[in-house]
Amino acid sequence: MTKWYEKSGTDGDVVISTRIRLARNVNHVPFPAAMTSEQKEDIINKVFAAFPDENGAFSCVRMETVSPREALSMVERHLISPDFANGAGETGKALLLSPDESVSIMVGEEDHLRIQVMRAGLDFDSIYEEANCWDDFLDSRLHFAFDDRLGYLTQCPTNLGTGMRASVMLHLPALQEHGIIQQLANTVSKLGLTIRGMYGEGSRSEGALYQLSNQVTLGLTEQEAIENLKSIAGQIIKEERQYREKMRSLPAFEDRVFRALGVLQNARLLSGKEFMSLVSQVRMGIALGMIPNGNLDRINRLIIEAQAANILCRAEQDLDAAARDSHRAAFVRDNIIC
Amino acid sequence: MTKWYEKSGTDGDVVISTRIRLARNVNHVPFPAAMTSEQKEDIINKVFAAFPDENGAFSCVRMETVSPREALSMVERHLISPDFANGAGETGKALLLSPDESVSIMVGEEDHLRIQVMRAGLDFDSIYEEANCWDDFLDSRLHFAFDDRLGYLTQCPTNLGTGMRASVMLHLPALQEHGIIQQLANTVSKLGLTIRGMYGEGSRSEGALYQLSNQVTLGLTEQEAIENLKSIAGQIIKEERQYREKMRSLPAFEDRVFRALGVLQNARLLSGKEFMSLVSQVRMGIALGMIPNGNLDRINRLIIEAQAANILCRAEQDLDAAARDSHRAAFVRDNIIC
Repeated sequence: MTKWYEKSGTDGDVVISTRIRLARNVNHVPFPAAMTSEQKEDIINKVFAAFPDENGAFSCVRMETVSPREALSMVERHLISPDFANGAGETGKALLLSPDESVSIMVGEEDHLRIQVMRAGLDFDSIYEEANCWDDFLDSRLHFAFDDRLGYLTQCPTNLGTGMRASVMLHLPALQEHGIIQQLANTVSKLGLTIRGMYGEGSRSEGALYQLSNQVTLGLTEQEAIENLKSIAGQIIKEERQYREKMRSLPAFEDRVFRALGVLQNARLLSGKEFMSLVSQVRMGIALGMIPNGNLDRINRLIIEAQAANILCRAEQDLDAAARDSHRAAFVRDNIIC
Repeated sequence: MTKWYEKSGTDGDVVISTRIRLARNVNHVPFPAAMTSEQKEDIINKVFAAFPDENGAFSCVRMETVSPREALSMVERHLISPDFANGAGETGKALLLSPDESVSIMVGEEDHLRIQVMRAGLDFDSIYEEANCWDDFLDSRLHFAFDDRLGYLTQCPTNLGTGMRASVMLHLPALQEHGIIQQLANTVSKLGLTIRGMYGEGSRSEGALYQLSNQVTLGLTEQEAIENLKSIAGQIIKEERQYREKMRSLPAFEDRVFRALGVLQNARLLSGKEFMSLVSQVRMGIALGMIPNGNLDRINRLIIEAQAANILCRAEQDLDAAARDSHRAAFVRDNIIC
């Protein structure tokens, strides 16, 4: 089945994806940090029971059956958090995954449940609706801890209230090039938002990919948080497009885009960092219509599939850095443009 | 008509071309430095008269009719010396040129005549024979200054004797990469040879192209000088091939060759210096059979035709550096591989 990240969506020239994540805990059960093994097992069993085989064909995966390599490839596909991947091989953690990987539910992360819905492009309305459906469905079976004054109860107080983190992954090469990201980060933080690298908290930005997300979960509704995020994202998208238009006509810019394409089409060794830097140039060139046969869907997919652990999973073996760079280069050559 | 440099020849993986140049002066006429305008005109007329229109269709060009741009493009095609090109627009200098540009005769350079024969690949025997024919033909009409003890008399004493300079243009990227050129230069100088950049005396090597030529014209015959050059060239070719074979299997080498190809196929701006550096990598890759559809003939031709003045001549206008780099990039994209 086609994965959600194999296509681009609304405002796909700038927006890679939209994500909503809900932190939920089961009533009358301690938070994960204080749970016994039996309690952890009990919650996993209850969640798995809610998704019988015949119901939508979700995959139910216990993390003790997952290799570190597979777990990292899931992080790269944004299905689980880096922290959760560290638990690969351990009991007490599980993952539910829809066939197109747009819905993933981590059981036993920082909270009992982390319900996540993702979609390509800018698409808050439909994923909020879908996240709500899964929230209601699971609440009806597990009964989530909710306080009339505080809202949803979460292990970390920063998630109290809506328990919702909504984010958009933005491709901002032109704003980055013009040194505007730091200024942007300062501005959005005053508006209760934060802008971070591709893999969230603590991650660097590679390939000019930035995650814009809400910080505040208490004192405003889900709808208010999303409207806020939509409005700021809209302004950033507009500004990124304006700077791209300025760059478009520079001969040195066209040169750089095509050189990046030439290297991606020809290199025999390609580090992850160089790949991200080059593919970012090429993605901008495609978005500006400069590259014949260029295709944003293909590029979005490549950005995921050329990450280190995805390379190793495809090779079905561990590889040293040079061999991995060689596999990456071969994969990129075959998939950058068809 | 196909030019001599549009194909590769014997040992074409390493040898670009072979050249013989004979310095000749007409008996009982002062050397160019001391000639009157009438004497210069008289020699030009005599040489032109030896090549009537119906005889082989040599072009007879008076340098006063040649623009500086055209003159420089002739230097790039190795038809005339840089000094001779400085005389573009002046009277008293002329050029005779065979249709395939393999034979060029400068009239009024440092000597009355410089007879030059070039061919692709390593090919001393046939070009020596051909140079001899033109020498005899012109001697029969103009009567060259010859002294039984000193041999051919020339304006500069370093050409006295045979008046012959024989050279091979070698592509030595592997020896250059391994830092062996300087050592080679020291060795060959002890053997009466010299190794220099692409455009002879005082020119830098770009693209790892080196000219190996004889220095000594007095005290040995033409045949001895050529045998000496053939033997040393043979050893250098062998050594270059050995180093290339060592490099062939390195993944980083393959990566570099294909990246160079990718940039040449895609760049929108390409300086002459960068072009030479990249095309050198690609040429070695083609010679090692690494590049499908790679073709040494095409590369040899491109090395000539992507030089600055050839670009300007093709554009039929003067261009600033950025525009020239843009024209070069477009020409290279269209011609690097078909």
